[in-house]
Amino acid sequence: MIEQFKKFGRLLFESGVISSHGGNMSLKLGDTVVITRRNSMLGDLNDGDIISVGEDGTGSEAASRELSVHLSIYREVDCRAVVHAHPPYAVALSLMVDKIVPVDAEGSYYLKEIPILDVERSIGSEKVAAKIPGLLKECPVVVVKGHGSFAVGNDLEEAFRLTSSLEFSSRILWLCGVFKGRGD
Amino acid sequence: MIEQFKKFGRLLFESGVISSHGGNMSLKLGDTVVITRRNSMLGDLNDGDIISVGEDGTGSEAASRELSVHLSIYREVDCRAVVHAHPPYAVALSLMVDKIVPVDAEGSYYLKEIPILDVERSIGSEKVAAKIPGLLKECPVVVVKGHGSFAVGNDLEEAFRLTSSLEFSSRILWLCGVFKGRGD
Amino acid sequence: MIEQFKKFGRLLFESGVISSHGGNMSLKLGDTVVITRRNSMLGDLNDGDIISVGEDGTGSEAASRELSVHLSIYREVDCRAVVHAHPPYAVALSLMVDKIVPVDAEGSYYLKEIPILDVERSIGSEKVAAKIPGLLKECPVVVVKGHGSFAVGNDLEEAFRLTSSLEFSSRILWLCGVFKGRGD
Amino acid sequence: MIEQFKKFGRLLFESGVISSHGGNMSLKLGDTVVITRRNSMLGDLNDGDIISVGEDGTGSEAASRELSVHLSIYREVDCRAVVHAHPPYAVALSLMVDKIVPVDAEGSYYLKEIPILDVERSIGSEKVAAKIPGLLKECPVVVVKGHGSFAVGNDLEEAFRLTSSLEFSSRILWLCGVFKGRGD
Repeated sequence: MIEQFKKFGRLLFESGVISSHGGNMSLKLGDTVVITRRNSMLGDLNDGDIISVGEDGTGSEAASRELSVHLSIYREVDCRAVVHAHPPYAVALSLMVDKIVPVDAEGSYYLKEIPILDVERSIGSEKVAAKIPGLLKECPVVVVKGHGSFAVGNDLEEAFRLTSSLEFSSRILWLCGVFKGRGD
Repeated sequence: MIEQFKKFGRLLFESGVISSHGGNMSLKLGDTVVITRRNSMLGDLNDGDIISVGEDGTGSEAASRELSVHLSIYREVDCRAVVHAHPPYAVALSLMVDKIVPVDAEGSYYLKEIPILDVERSIGSEKVAAKIPGLLKECPVVVVKGHGSFAVGNDLEEAFRLTSSLEFSSRILWLCGVFKGRGD
Repeated sequence: MIEQFKKFGRLLFESGVISSHGGNMSLKLGDTVVITRRNSMLGDLNDGDIISVGEDGTGSEAASRELSVHLSIYREVDCRAVVHAHPPYAVALSLMVDKIVPVDAEGSYYLKEIPILDVERSIGSEKVAAKIPGLLKECPVVVVKGHGSFAVGNDLEEAFRLTSSLEFSSRILWLCGVFKGRGD
Repeated sequence: MIEQFKKFGRLLFESGVISSHGGNMSLKLGDTVVITRRNSMLGDLNDGDIISVGEDGTGSEAASRELSVHLSIYREVDCRAVVHAHPPYAVALSLMVDKIVPVDAEGSYYLKEIPILDVERSIGSEKVAAKIPGLLKECPVVVVKGHGSFAVGNDLEEAFRLTSSLEFSSRILWLCGVFKGRGD
């Protein structure tokens, strides 16, 4: 299980969708949520960077600042994995448009329309925790405006795939300039 | 042979021409086509991700969604390898121009003019399967509009080379802005 | 300790914030400053590329050209590590704006406003050495105009993190075009 | 010596300054020139990809298409290594400006002004072979318009360094948009 965190953490870093210490990942295993440590580097995870958080809150201080968002997602969304990343094209677009509508074949087929959640001070935010599960039920990947993406899946691979696909579609949109706001 | 898939899958990923689960590759070996598994990660292929598809269709359910396009290419084009990728600059250009005409020395010398095939709902499409072989006879790499590239060669290396060269030429064109459409 | 230099040197290179021989790193260990060798490649450091500079100046000829800036920082700023890099988006912005004000959540939260120091002929400059410590007391990462970043921390990881975060925020700003100067 | 080729070939690929089969490198060892094989992948060189070319021309058929340019450089320029790459920002700029004048500190300090050689059909060109040595005597790295860079040094590392530095400076220029031609 730790190997899965290391593998997909490294792939997130190599894919260019996180800064050095950005992003976090979790898995739901029965009543336990396993999540990356606060301030860990997903591209270079050690065994000690994987934290088990019990129902009684044990482990929550060492866990990622976004723990409350992950827990809220698991309560309301039928999924077993959550990946949070900072894909730069998706984050840039989120500051310029109200939703991300892919124009490439893969994005149109799998994602159709990615919601953008607009919340102030969005790091580890209660408001994000309250509002994002509803959006994730409609689309398995959502962008928090100016912040980053949350993707859900049955495993880390599926949530990673959605993150990578979102960024690919966002990059195509940006390269085509088919949106408003680019310095206009 | 599996090592060739792993090597060029990894190089495609490192070259930035596929998203995490995008793209696929195949080889024709006698009457058998060997192709990457549906939903596999080309940048991290395992032995089980290489699927043999016999003349009777065995293996086709596990194979890439683009299998029908690969088979169609092998029927009509004299080649032994096919590489499908999602090179972002080429995909972006395909949404803005009718054909890609390199302005760099390497692209002008080897590729001259890359056709763009405009087909709706192009993933695993019958129309792509029907139309792309004719275009590949004229140019060994073709872009399906808004979707990705198909390149043919005698081996995976040759098809990879064409994919990488297409993306390099597309990037130079984009950086120079010598086309219409960038937000204009 | 040498392993830390190799690890974060490689991560700086993989993060795209240094050219092949650009950037340098140091640690303060008691009265000694340990710094990367002049003309070394941070992405591929050898044991011989880590130079100890004593209080009497031993080792200073082999050390990075920016040694005087590092020493000046250690004299005035409460820190144990310095990372100097050439993050391209931050460097480009520094030529177009007076300070870098992140618009993304992570950058707004951790960095708020990154100062830009405008000094002519800034490589190994006495003026940079004189002026940068004051700025680093206000913000732990500073950009020298048209040159690169200096970040401070308790260890190389913290200074690397600030460098990566600066570049992420700069890239978002650039992608959004929310500044003056882009060919206007 | 073969290890040097492998090391700097891989670093060129990781630096993003060559496409999969683009670029080539050589060393002058006494009366012999050692050069990469035609159609080799610099990012994944094998022992058999390093070709010795004697004074009598042995080995020249397997050698890179740019062999005549390398030989011409060694005849006229005092150097022991040549690196040819296709750095995308430098190539794009070469199609838009007459010379590359860095605005960043590192580029201004080391390179000042990089000449651009304008020659039609520039791959393995006699005209490039005739004209580039004179330019390399003035500046150790030169860009052939729309094609790529040639850099000289005492070893592969020095020529690689110049290539990486050229691309960094070109990228800063492009990001700042301080040139004519970007779609204008």
